[in-house]
Amino acid sequence: MSEIRIIDVKEGILSDNHMEADKLRKELRSRHTFLLNLMASPGAGKTTTIIKTLEMLDGALKVGVLEADIDSTVDAELVAAAGAQAVQIHTGGMCHLDAEMTRAGLEGLDTASLDLIILENVGNLVCPAEFDTGASCSVMILSVPEGDDKPLKYPLMFTVCSAVIINKIDCVPFFEFDFQEFKRRVRKRNPDIAIFEVSAKTGAGFLPWVEWLSAKVNAWNETS
Amino acid sequence: MSEIRIIDVKEGILSDNHMEADKLRKELRSRHTFLLNLMASPGAGKTTTIIKTLEMLDGALKVGVLEADIDSTVDAELVAAAGAQAVQIHTGGMCHLDAEMTRAGLEGLDTASLDLIILENVGNLVCPAEFDTGASCSVMILSVPEGDDKPLKYPLMFTVCSAVIINKIDCVPFFEFDFQEFKRRVRKRNPDIAIFEVSAKTGAGFLPWVEWLSAKVNAWNETS
Repeated sequence: MSEIRIIDVKEGILSDNHMEADKLRKELRSRHTFLLNLMASPGAGKTTTIIKTLEMLDGALKVGVLEADIDSTVDAELVAAAGAQAVQIHTGGMCHLDAEMTRAGLEGLDTASLDLIILENVGNLVCPAEFDTGASCSVMILSVPEGDDKPLKYPLMFTVCSAVIINKIDCVPFFEFDFQEFKRRVRKRNPDIAIFEVSAKTGAGFLPWVEWLSAKVNAWNETS
Repeated sequence: MSEIRIIDVKEGILSDNHMEADKLRKELRSRHTFLLNLMASPGAGKTTTIIKTLEMLDGALKVGVLEADIDSTVDAELVAAAGAQAVQIHTGGMCHLDAEMTRAGLEGLDTASLDLIILENVGNLVCPAEFDTGASCSVMILSVPEGDDKPLKYPLMFTVCSAVIINKIDCVPFFEFDFQEFKRRVRKRNPDIAIFEVSAKTGAGFLPWVEWLSAKVNAWNETS
């Protein structure tokens, strides 16, 4: 039996999600807590990236994790086993999280004691990009097997994120993935986006990503 | 410049999508045309699977393809280059297709002359599963890099499909994918589902899939 706390959330009834998201963002800022909204396709490696990030941070930041899924607790169990405070959010079939759902999930964590909360959004490159969760920052993962043409097909996701992590670079020999072309396509949508190349499996390339994230978290929490 | 025909579709205004889907299904049946709704995550290999299927069919069925994406025409161009009638549907940001959007897309094809129309739905394991497109049959692709835990997280998708194609089996050495466990999880949701193991890149495993599909198409069109 799982000991993971499960929180069932429903789509917000508030008509103005943007206002609710801004309110949540300000509250988190006043509590010196940075909320990272992590988005990707199913199977891009969100959970593995979170676990490797926790390992690399090695206690330098106090981290909690919200795992959103339609069903199951497999991700929250993995993250809890890696030593983080973890809560599983069940979206009741919903394809994304909004600010009200995120707020409900945050109630399962001791936010005041945490520097960083990572929200693993539902695996989906479309809908999550349309809803502000109240996060301090949104980041996406695109894995090599998905292909370098995704910025052409899912433009909004690449536009709303501050960084894109290219994951599974260890399996490059198996796939045709043109890194230069991918970066060109991403930067056409979003010229200021940070791009990292990693393997969450081997840990390759994690240092620049973890340094970038830590700097963001520290800057946010110091100016609270 | 692309010569692909692009059809912009909007979400149906009809309240009863199910009724509209049934109507479309009956019309297609009376025209002896089988509509396959193909769903998967972004980058699972939908377009490559369609192209390899066309190659294996080798003219035995007259096939048209509807490529649904939020933006770009890259998929329709690839399919047209492989010799099929192809139409690009732009969903205007929508995360799925419904029956009315499918009907609008079908207007770009000479349906009466076609035995089989393959509808490549938006890359998404959540929303497309919730909307009946009017298809004769729904099939999904799950690629090895996405992982064997997906039936736990996206239960509805695995429930509404008549077959699941496990793609990218050529890259199994790079990923931990437990085929037995995956099949057990899928069949728990959907005991009657057909499961195929293929590599759209190498063509491995395509014969059973193409035979299964051809039998479905012929049975449908003969009983029209």
